[in-house]
Parts: sequence; C-alpha cells; structure tokens
Amino acid sequence: MIIVVRPQTPDAQIDDIVRHIEDLGLKAHISKGEMRTIIGVIGDEGKLSAEPLAAIPGVEQVLPIMKPFKLASREFHPQDTVVQVGKVKIGGGHLGMIAGPCAIESREILDEIAGHVRAAGANILRGGAFKPRTSPYSFQGLGEQGLKILREVGDKHDMPVVTEVMDPRQVDLVNQYADMFQIGARNMQNFDLLKEVGQTRRPVLLKRGLSASVKDLLMSVEYILMGGNHQVVLCERGVRTFETSTRNMLDLSIVPNVKGQSHLPIIVDPSHATGRPDLIPSMARAAVAAEADGVHIEVHSCPPKALSDGDQALLPAQYHSLMKDLRKLAEVMGKSIS
Amino acid sequence: MIIVVRPQTPDAQIDDIVRHIEDLGLKAHISKGEMRTIIGVIGDEGKLSAEPLAAIPGVEQVLPIMKPFKLASREFHPQDTVVQVGKVKIGGGHLGMIAGPCAIESREILDEIAGHVRAAGANILRGGAFKPRTSPYSFQGLGEQGLKILREVGDKHDMPVVTEVMDPRQVDLVNQYADMFQIGARNMQNFDLLKEVGQTRRPVLLKRGLSASVKDLLMSVEYILMGGNHQVVLCERGVRTFETSTRNMLDLSIVPNVKGQSHLPIIVDPSHATGRPDLIPSMARAAVAAEADGVHIEVHSCPPKALSDGDQALLPAQYHSLMKDLRKLAEVMGKSIS
Amino acid sequence: MIIVVRPQTPDAQIDDIVRHIEDLGLKAHISKGEMRTIIGVIGDEGKLSAEPLAAIPGVEQVLPIMKPFKLASREFHPQDTVVQVGKVKIGGGHLGMIAGPCAIESREILDEIAGHVRAAGANILRGGAFKPRTSPYSFQGLGEQGLKILREVGDKHDMPVVTEVMDPRQVDLVNQYADMFQIGARNMQNFDLLKEVGQTRRPVLLKRGLSASVKDLLMSVEYILMGGNHQVVLCERGVRTFETSTRNMLDLSIVPNVKGQSHLPIIVDPSHATGRPDLIPSMARAAVAAEADGVHIEVHSCPPKALSDGDQALLPAQYHSLMKDLRKLAEVMGKSIS
Amino acid sequence: MIIVVRPQTPDAQIDDIVRHIEDLGLKAHISKGEMRTIIGVIGDEGKLSAEPLAAIPGVEQVLPIMKPFKLASREFHPQDTVVQVGKVKIGGGHLGMIAGPCAIESREILDEIAGHVRAAGANILRGGAFKPRTSPYSFQGLGEQGLKILREVGDKHDMPVVTEVMDPRQVDLVNQYADMFQIGARNMQNFDLLKEVGQTRRPVLLKRGLSASVKDLLMSVEYILMGGNHQVVLCERGVRTFETSTRNMLDLSIVPNVKGQSHLPIIVDPSHATGRPDLIPSMARAAVAAEADGVHIEVHSCPPKALSDGDQALLPAQYHSLMKDLRKLAEVMGKSIS
Repeated sequence: MIIVVRPQTPDAQIDDIVRHIEDLGLKAHISKGEMRTIIGVIGDEGKLSAEPLAAIPGVEQVLPIMKPFKLASREFHPQDTVVQVGKVKIGGGHLGMIAGPCAIESREILDEIAGHVRAAGANILRGGAFKPRTSPYSFQGLGEQGLKILREVGDKHDMPVVTEVMDPRQVDLVNQYADMFQIGARNMQNFDLLKEVGQTRRPVLLKRGLSASVKDLLMSVEYILMGGNHQVVLCERGVRTFETSTRNMLDLSIVPNVKGQSHLPIIVDPSHATGRPDLIPSMARAAVAAEADGVHIEVHSCPPKALSDGDQALLPAQYHSLMKDLRKLAEVMGKSIS
Repeated sequence: MIIVVRPQTPDAQIDDIVRHIEDLGLKAHISKGEMRTIIGVIGDEGKLSAEPLAAIPGVEQVLPIMKPFKLASREFHPQDTVVQVGKVKIGGGHLGMIAGPCAIESREILDEIAGHVRAAGANILRGGAFKPRTSPYSFQGLGEQGLKILREVGDKHDMPVVTEVMDPRQVDLVNQYADMFQIGARNMQNFDLLKEVGQTRRPVLLKRGLSASVKDLLMSVEYILMGGNHQVVLCERGVRTFETSTRNMLDLSIVPNVKGQSHLPIIVDPSHATGRPDLIPSMARAAVAAEADGVHIEVHSCPPKALSDGDQALLPAQYHSLMKDLRKLAEVMGKSIS
Repeated sequence: MIIVVRPQTPDAQIDDIVRHIEDLGLKAHISKGEMRTIIGVIGDEGKLSAEPLAAIPGVEQVLPIMKPFKLASREFHPQDTVVQVGKVKIGGGHLGMIAGPCAIESREILDEIAGHVRAAGANILRGGAFKPRTSPYSFQGLGEQGLKILREVGDKHDMPVVTEVMDPRQVDLVNQYADMFQIGARNMQNFDLLKEVGQTRRPVLLKRGLSASVKDLLMSVEYILMGGNHQVVLCERGVRTFETSTRNMLDLSIVPNVKGQSHLPIIVDPSHATGRPDLIPSMARAAVAAEADGVHIEVHSCPPKALSDGDQALLPAQYHSLMKDLRKLAEVMGKSIS
Repeated sequence: MIIVVRPQTPDAQIDDIVRHIEDLGLKAHISKGEMRTIIGVIGDEGKLSAEPLAAIPGVEQVLPIMKPFKLASREFHPQDTVVQVGKVKIGGGHLGMIAGPCAIESREILDEIAGHVRAAGANILRGGAFKPRTSPYSFQGLGEQGLKILREVGDKHDMPVVTEVMDPRQVDLVNQYADMFQIGARNMQNFDLLKEVGQTRRPVLLKRGLSASVKDLLMSVEYILMGGNHQVVLCERGVRTFETSTRNMLDLSIVPNVKGQSHLPIIVDPSHATGRPDLIPSMARAAVAAEADGVHIEVHSCPPKALSDGDQALLPAQYHSLMKDLRKLAEVMGKSIS
C-alpha cells in the first residue's frame, strides 16, 4: 500500500498518518519528493484493505500494490487447477464442451437435443430448471421437475449435467441432481449464495457479472474457495457496454488475463454474450484460439418454439458443423476434449 | 409488437409468421413497403414477450412498442404513489432524508451519529447489519445484533429505520426490526429476494444495479409489486462506466425519466455514486433540483475509523451544512420534509 | 511516480531500473517491503510520462502520483478563471446562459428564436454553420453564409455568438464572425484543431468527448492553453453508456470534480446529453444546483421543421418557463447572470 | 420507418402526422391496435432520416427499419471487397499482416524492426510520423522526415507502408509517401478528414472510435465511399468500458458482425486494444479464428526505449513466434497471406 500525501501537509499531520499505520502493526516508510511526500506501508496489506485510509486528513491517494484476492491467485497456487465434472475434465489442456437448451422444457425435447449435442461431441449437458428472467411475466422454469428430467437425460446419454442455482435455499436440492452448479451473471455478487455453494464439494461454474471487472470476478471466486470448495470454473458471457447490435460485448481478453493471475480454468459462452446465432460460431472459434478451457453453447432443435432465449440458440446441424471446426482448432492449440 | 420481414422473403414464409401469431390468439396486420414488409401484431403484447419470434425464418427484427412493465407504469396508476415509512412520507412532494453510517458498528457510535443527523433534519435513519462486500476479507456486518441496535437507536431518536436485506432467508428477521427493507445494487436482479419482500407489506428501497437500465430497474420493481407490496421507493446510486475518478457515475436523468413513466418515488444516493465527500454536497443539491423525492447520505462521526466505506462518509458538520442548502432548494422546488 | 517491482526480481535487475531513472536526471528511492519492492521516483514527473517504464524487465506496475496536466490545474492557478465572451462573463459566480437552435437554417428563423431566448434571459446566442453529422446524408450546415447570419442576428439582439469549428482550415474564417469557438464532442481529441484555436485569443467552448474521462478532457484543454489562449470554458454534454432510453448519460459530478482540480469554468448541455425535451428542464435545474457556470440549451420555434436535432429542442415557451426556475436557483446558489 | 402514436391521441392529430409524411412524398399506412396506433411509412426512408419526426405532437416513438448506410452495405455490394495495398491484398481470403513500431523514431531503428517483421512474415509495414497523443507533453512524431524514412525503409524491405494522417491539411503530403492512410480511433468522426481521404484513390485503414457503435463505424466509412474511394479496410482496436485491467476492451464480435452487413474487410489490432504484451498473442490468434482479414501489431526491438507506446509492443522474437501460430490458424481457416 502506498499513501500519497497532499502538498503542503504539515509534518504533524504526516506523523498522525504514520501513527495510524503503526497502530495496525505495520511499518511506514516515508519518501519526501519535490512535489509530494509518499508513505510506503510495509506488512500484510490485507489488514489495511478494510480501513478507510483515504478519509484521514492529509491523504490525497491510496494506491494498493497487491492483488486483493489470495486463494484464486497463481502466486498462491502456481499449477493449473483441473476441475472434474463427473468424468469430464476442464482445465490443464482439457476442454469442457457444454451444450444444451437454455431452459428444460420437457423430457422429449431435452432428450432430442442431448442426443444431437452428444453426437456432435459435447461432453457436458446444460439446461435450466430455475430461470432468472428480467421480466416476471416470462417463463420461470420447471423447478425440481426440471432437475429430475435433466438427471435422467444426462444419465441416458452418459453426460454429466450443469444447471443454475439462484437462491441459497435451492443449493441442497440442486446438489442432489446436478454434477455442477451454475451461478449466473446476475448472481455473481450474491455473496450468500456463493458462501452456500462454497460449503459443498460440487464443482461450480461461475459466470461473470454484466459489469464485473476481472478483479471483481476473482474476488467473488474467493468467497467460494474460502468455504473449502476449490472446484471452480469461470465463465465469460459478455459485459454490458454502449453497443446495441449485440446483446452484450464478449470480452475474450479475460481468458489470458485470468490465466496470467489465477490457476482456475475459464470457459466462454458466446450464446449469451452475442445473443445472435450468426455470430456464435466465430466467437466460439475465437475462444478456443484464445486458449479458453471450453465453450458453453445453447442448442435447441426448434428455436422458435423455445420457452426461453430461443433467439440465440444454434440448431443441432449448426452446432455439429461448429464442433468440427473447434476440434481442428483444439488440435492446433494442443488441447484435448475428453 | 412490430415484425420486420427480411427482403426477398417468399410469401409462404410470411404466411408462416402470420400463422404463428394467430396461433397465439392475436391478429396480424401486414404492410408491404418498397424495401421491407412489416407485420403489426394486434392484441396483448405481453403474450408475445416470452416468444422467440426473432428465431422464425424470415424475421429480420422484432420491435416491441409497449412498455414491458405494467404495475409500475403511470399508465396503470396515474397518481404519484406516496410511500409511508413509519410516520415519514416519501413521494408526492414529500422528501425522504435518509442518513446514517454505512455499517452499524456499535450502539454508541450509531447513537452519536443519529443524534447529529436528526438535529440536522434527517427523517429516516440508515445502517447496515448485513453487508455485501466485494471482498470476503472485509467486515461483513453485525447481523441480528446490529438490527437490535438500529431499532433501539431509531426509537430513541424517533426515526424510522431502513437496513439492507441480502438473502431471502433474512427477510423474516429483518422484518421484525426495520421499518423499510433496502435491497442493494448487487441484488437488484436477485429475483427470489424480490419475490420474498413482495410477500411482506413493509416498504422497500430498491437500488439500481450497477449496469441496470431504467427499464431493467422497473422490471425488477414489477417482481415486488406482483406480490402485492406496493410500497416501493427506487434509488439511483450510480452506474459503472469508463470514468475512474469517481466510484460510479451518478445518472440524475433517471429521476425525471422514471417519474415520466412510473408513479413510484425515486431518491438519490450521492454517497455510493461518487465515493467522494468533496462531490456529495453538489450532487445532493442537484438531486433535489432534479425533483428527486429524497436523498440518501452516509454520515459518520469519524470516517477514518469506520469499518465500511468510511472514505465516502460526510462528517456531521458537513451534513448539517448540506441540509441547510437542501431545505432552501426544497422550498424553491415546492417540496416539504416531514 | 512509483514503480512496483515484480516479486523475486534479482537485485541486478532492480539496479537496472534505478540506472534507467537516474539516466533521466531523476532520483530513485527504494523501499523493500515483505511482498514487494517499490521505487519512488523523485524529480520532475513530466520527464517520465513519455517513457515506457512498464516495459522494463522486472517492472510490475507504474503508478503516477501527479496530475498529468499543469496549465489547467488549480495548483498552478488557484483563482477561478473568468472567461469574457463579448461583454458576458462566464465563471467566478457569473452564469453563461447559451441558447439557440442546433443549426442555422435561415435569417428569419434564427432571428425569431434569438428574440425569444433573449427575452427569456439568455445572454449568448448559439447556432451551427458547420455541422458534424454521423450520417453523410444529413444536413451539413450553411457554412460561411450561416456565419454571416449568426453575426447579424447576434448584433441585432445584442448577444455575443458561439458556433462550432470542425476543421483547422475553418479557424480563420470562424474567427472573423464568432465571439467564441465551440469544439464539439467528436473533436475533443482532434489535436491539430485544438492547437489551431490555441493560437487565437478567442474564447473556446470545449465539449467533453463521448467517452472522455475527466482527465482526458483536462489534457485536451492543455493543448489550447499551451498556445497561449487561456479563455477556455468546458462543457459536459453526456457520455456514452449502456443506457438506451436517453441519448447519452449526463455526468453532473464532473462539475464539482473539475472545479476541485482546475480553475476553468464548466457549463452543462442537457439538450445533447439527454436528447429528450421532457428531461432537459430537470437537468438544467440540477446543473445550476451543482454549481455549473452556465447551461447550454437548444431552442427552436418549430422543432418538427428543424433541419438538425429538432427532436431535442425546447420550444420558446418551455425555455422561458425554465429560465424563471433557473434564476431562482441561481439566487439560492449565489450566482449572477450578466 | 414506423411511427408509434401516443395513447389517446385525437384523430385530428394523427391526420397531421400523416399529412407531414405525405408532404415528403411518402405514403402512410395506419394500423389501429388495441393499445396503440402505428403508422408505417412507405417510400425512401432516407428522406426521413434528417426529419425530427419525434418532435411532432402525438408521436411516441420513431422506429427506423432500414440500415442508415448504403454504399458500405452488403445489400448494395454482395461480394467481398478486396483492398490492394501495393501488391498486398486484404479481404476475400487474403490476410493483411501489418506490423511495425508505434512511432518512427529513426531510420536505424525502423530498418532493424522492418527486417525482423518481414522475416517473420509481415506483409505491410506501419509506423507513425504524426502522432495523436492525449498529452501535449508526449512525443508528437517526426512529421515529413518520418514519412521519408518510412518510404525508404518500406522500399528496402519490399513492403508497402501505412501511416496515420490526422489533419485534412496533411493528406496531400502523406499521399506522396504512403501506400495506405490510417485514420485513428480519435478521428473516426473527424468528418472533414474522412471527406478529404475520400477524394484520393489511396486505400484507407479506418480504426473504430473508442465509443463508436458498429453502426457509427459504418456511417463514417460512408463519408469516404461517397467521395469515390472504395478501398477501405476497417480496424477493431478496442472500445472503452468499465474494465481497467486492459487499456481497452477488444470487441471481436465486430468481425462477423461487420462481415454480415458489409462487403468491406476488417482487421484487428490487439496491441492498442489490450495495451498488454502478455495478452496480445492470444487475441491475435482469436482474431484469425474469428475470420478477421488480418492483424495489426506493434513490434519494437527495444520497448523500454520506444518514444511512444513502448509498453504495448511485442519483441521481434515474440512476434516471430506468434506469426508461426497465425500461419497454422490461417490454414485451418482457409486463408492465405500474400
């Protein structure tokens, strides 16, 4: 932590700042420059993060120099984490190819879609039973009935399954049916929910919030890791910007950005990011070339009849063709699909 | 709803689109233009909102023409709603002046602050017992002990109290102590929480999410109103943009924007929006001049010792001086403070 | 300037960084912390700003501690600058009330509008002769003919006039007719244009770019001030964000933000910021309450017939009514309108 | 164009709107729905785009249904445009591999860098002689001397050259030395500059503005195409968002997005977008996988000594290694590098 002192601050006030730091059991190191005095704070910066240092009279700026997260950091855990979802590996060179409909609508429809995506090479099946919808007038999901269907269809096609959990009170129930929890973008900072899944030992797919910085995302992960659950996969699904021709803006640079500072795998969801089937295949290819640990794609056998987000689903044939490209790119990138 | 058909779409495909609309019990009205055919959909647009019409072959664009919310709209309820928090009114010309510390730290500190803000003219006391913190290493609040302190201090100073609820499982508990629920920005789309407070008859202060559009905010309100709880006050507290010299960007235009389309009161929180005590007074004045129904300001008697967000708190003397200005402006604007 | 060194950087590499700094004639001050070594750089930080220090091996972060602008800063010039436009003062307690149509369409129309806004209390007349239009198919302005009309109508109504200059080659011409140059948002970083108006001694109204930070704006001002022209008024006119219900998002916090760090006046343009006549009056009132040094408002006597941006113009009667409110607020704020 | 009429608008006012449309030589088609009346406007939508229809009393919304650009659209020109820069092709399966330093500093340095990038497979050399710098205190470029050096070094290494033009007055001069004009992000809406290069027959590399939508970018292209210059290559170089860990946010979805609606080639500049050498290679690979028509990368043989943007340059060895990957990916994608 570095504290920059305002110009013309009297020495007595600088002494007060130093005393404040030393009261916390830390050391202060003063450098007087021509235009500004700066104070380096030596010791555990974590102790300071909750302290409102900027409110001390005479303080102009407070510049943190350490990352605010620890368990998620590569400094703390240098090797890539490999997350195990059923028998499927994500991370460390293994790609998670997650596919399925936005919402679980019926056993027949899910079974048909699962057959298609399995044949095309997907290794994890997705489908929502609890749906966070901007409008209360939209379809809200089948609930437990949907979870049962997802489990049965997953077993039939020999695919582990991932589904969203929205409420801390649903965690036990979802844990009985799913191989992986998904926490959606709107809940990335639902801290009670993060703590609750952190208490389980079930893998978690944590989606980036619509306006979450990379640092915010890694801080949210920390809530899960602190509970003892280390099986977390991050997911980029687009952020909100001024551009209106796509639903959100896909930020692929987060992939190498996260990999540089964290050991956790990160996958990409071009379906929610773009909201446009014409853009999804290019963005999925780009994700693999950017070294993402997988892609998450919505597929529906009849998008105009889908009860949720049908506008953005690929048809089975489109997904099949895309997966051919992704396998070629995975080979060039030295990655495997289990 | 208007559907724009792609150029060169064969008539048979247009017939398919029309059939799809009629299957929903609606009427379709075709206009063939020189460059495009458009289809006007007549009937209850709500029926269509969950339908992925853009995925029908031949459809180029789907343009909704109705607002997607109903209970919150001024068309549905033309008069201003006046929300009653204890004996304090917010809306319809009555200003809610909410003040207090970010977090409840102890009875002594809260009591001291409450004395100051009451004397300055605040009419509702705030303080957090459950704190949503980006970092799991930051102070997380005193929980029920904090709620008890808040209730007692509020009663002593004859002020109704507002406090944040973060988890649906806390709603019953908070309902026993508080006069108004606060739902924070990070939970604006925590739909299960919205439904839960919608089941109570306790007023709710709903803060705008960091990247929520005005429409998103009004859709979230709809979740509360649908439960039968009509006592909702909205709160602008800044949104996330590229600007880094303030914590968030305060969007004051939301005040007249919401008032034009909804009957609900809306207040402004310049403390969280700017994160800078040097900017808070100007933004509070601007809020009153923009016809906000109140302001929400953090005050702490010793910001450098505050356990949460002390950097952004006003000192009691600063708050006192600000309230003098706000009373003058309220008079010019024809508003009263109960 | 503070340089944070990567963990485990060998001493020899730290010595290299220090040598690099000393080669620039500056002093380096090393502090070894538990987790990181930091190097304080003492001397003229300006010398370093063009240096790519982050590219030196071993450097993790470079943290500037000084403001990158000088002539615009309040440290350099503590008193408020008062800009003189004809006989009208802006800044230091004097409000500039700029009004007029977006584009100059004809002498008759401008004359009519000028009559209205003068009567309502405007003290500077605006109107565009050169129009930056997103679409090449939109009306591009009357050019020199428009400048002549503006001059004549301004003289007739005894109002100084401001008009936009878009191209360095137009500066001499516009200088012959206008009392103040306007540089639009799209040209805020058109550095050759900034240098050109910096060579004149004519006041400049510099609008904030659509995605310009406060720092960017003050850096652009520096280009004008360096040429010796100190008569600059800044203008907030909204920035681009995710919100789509307003044209741009008005950032009123820039007013106290700029005033804290710069001596230059700053006014607010709610017309371009919101693009909605129903929101303009509230935002103009808020601007005055936020201590802006004036407002810039588009007025047209017949918006549906306006050749440019008619959608956002106030009618003369609306402007008249707004000016009444603004005079009352100016009085509360202790400001005068010359 | 569709006009949505406010509820309860009297018929006489609807008649006024219709008359307004018919006065423009267009036809109006009225549909009365349960909740709203809508008016379809039939005829050349271009005639309406400059009309402030939203200001007509009774009009609630105006919904354009046609694209506002024409010459850049794929409807107007279905085949991919191939731009010829010297003997290098960009577009239609041909990748433009542009590389070089940010600024031209000296003949020796540029010659050394050109040798490296040529050997690695670059086919166009870049380097700035006129530099748009946020700060007036930063290096502003060598001007004509730089252009001469660029031309000589390009000829020596048999590479066509591209360099930035910032001011309409520089167009003739730059045209004498360069094979391609670059228009930078800050000048994307410098309309006089766009018109000026539109008068030449020299290829133009037009970079997306920091907050320009895809539509804005295509409208700016229209200014160049209208002058008769059809040799335009677009360039994505990141947009400004709330994320602070990268300089800008690279929006790769613009690549398929532009290709769907325009015939023009589009390349990607990961150097300016990310500002971080550790992220550039992944983003360059992703760009090729997303079907970009090339990449634009800054390379410097000694970044810490570079006079401009050295922090973001790749070293020659890094560029060499990246180009190996890009060639493999280009092969998978069916693209060639001339």
